[in-house]
Amino acid sequence: MKQIIFYISDGTGITAETLGHSLITQFENLDVESITIPYVDTTDKAMAAVKKINNSFKKNNSSPLIMATIIDDEIRKIISSSKGNLFEFFSIFLHPLSNILKQPYTHVTGRSHGVFDQKYYKERLNAISLSLTCDDGMGTNHYNEVDLILIGPSRAGKTPTCLYLALQFGLKAANYPLIDKDLNKIATPEFVEEYHHKIFGFLIEPNRLKLVRQERTGTSKYASETQCIWEINKIEKFYKINKIPYINATNLSIEEMATKALETLNIARKFI
Amino acid sequence: MKQIIFYISDGTGITAETLGHSLITQFENLDVESITIPYVDTTDKAMAAVKKINNSFKKNNSSPLIMATIIDDEIRKIISSSKGNLFEFFSIFLHPLSNILKQPYTHVTGRSHGVFDQKYYKERLNAISLSLTCDDGMGTNHYNEVDLILIGPSRAGKTPTCLYLALQFGLKAANYPLIDKDLNKIATPEFVEEYHHKIFGFLIEPNRLKLVRQERTGTSKYASETQCIWEINKIEKFYKINKIPYINATNLSIEEMATKALETLNIARKFI
Repeated sequence: MKQIIFYISDGTGITAETLGHSLITQFENLDVESITIPYVDTTDKAMAAVKKINNSFKKNNSSPLIMATIIDDEIRKIISSSKGNLFEFFSIFLHPLSNILKQPYTHVTGRSHGVFDQKYYKERLNAISLSLTCDDGMGTNHYNEVDLILIGPSRAGKTPTCLYLALQFGLKAANYPLIDKDLNKIATPEFVEEYHHKIFGFLIEPNRLKLVRQERTGTSKYASETQCIWEINKIEKFYKINKIPYINATNLSIEEMATKALETLNIARKFI
Repeated sequence: MKQIIFYISDGTGITAETLGHSLITQFENLDVESITIPYVDTTDKAMAAVKKINNSFKKNNSSPLIMATIIDDEIRKIISSSKGNLFEFFSIFLHPLSNILKQPYTHVTGRSHGVFDQKYYKERLNAISLSLTCDDGMGTNHYNEVDLILIGPSRAGKTPTCLYLALQFGLKAANYPLIDKDLNKIATPEFVEEYHHKIFGFLIEPNRLKLVRQERTGTSKYASETQCIWEINKIEKFYKINKIPYINATNLSIEEMATKALETLNIARKFI
């Protein structure tokens, strides 16, 4: 049976989706269909959302789940009058939090993913811009400005991890692919010594690397088993000789690679 | 007084940070210091975290807040023995959710930000890759493959919004800057007619655009008031003539721009 989930928020819906998704992945073999309704910030919009929820109930003859973040009491009340099972993530924590912090909460909607702090906003845009400048071995002359430098074979997830670090945490994240010329010559790239404390290495199993590369380029020397094994061996030696911390990223998500890099290099996250 | 917040998780800590940040932005004038401890997945690590929390208590003579997502009951118990005020976001919802879904939850940690679904993981990497290919007016020959195309003046937030859409939702998001040559000629770019249903426009107040550009290029024609006013006027006319939906993005965050674009174009989010 299909389980319908409505994510409802008076803001973007991202917080509701993030926690809701975390909770739902704890249940296996669920056939989930998700519907997000953002910006439910008037009673009219709340009533329109209730109508959608009740239609889903009627159509599927089963109560949908509602995962919600709603600041306004009246809107929350309207949503809770629907035929869905409501999990509202704000109200349950805001009251005890208010007692501990000894101040009322603002009741202003959409604060967490809005531009409420211009300084952070600008810092985040700059981080994204610099990370793009320093993508894929470019912009090495900016390495004095970056927070970290991810290195590893091409197609191991360095670029997505850098973009995630910039977007999520406002960190300036460069990445540098170790290619044949780096691995063949005796001297390592100059930046390795100067910025050693910023460098984190990725490894990936040769077989997985081969598959990822084949998907992109088809059969080629670059995607051959021999090349992938040679590269990974060389790169692991490179890390050991240069005392660069590294992880096997084969089974890690972007979020996990990002988190491991920050943890190892002892870099504090921003924006939290 | 400074409020210390520990984000503690047996996974990456991202869910704890997201909800915790949403809650905390409801309180004004808090001087917050955040510390994230990810991968607390053994009793030893839990006890080490408790030590850090208790040290913070001793040093500041005030209980830190703990925002946590912990699946394992024993680890949660250890953390709750500390001198912090614990808000744990999983346990409170998992039991009622388990009753509704009529199945136990898996108790496996780190599921939500892990690579538990290879298909999604690949789709997400492809989305990031294509979004980079179609950044800043490049890759228009791939517009048949993309989910949406953001257009607008240069430096209005198109690139970060596209990267966010790709990373967060696995959507293939192109962006195209409307520059003088598009605005001066009578014929609009060819893709506008063919992919009209995928296009969403950004506007930004000329004054804000001027400031953003000046920060990047200093004084220049590109960053002049005259140029910014001229561009924005032309672009708004362009949207109206071509019947392109648009928003004023001046005071919107990346998440808000992304959400508004999806809502308007009626594009479903993925990965939720």
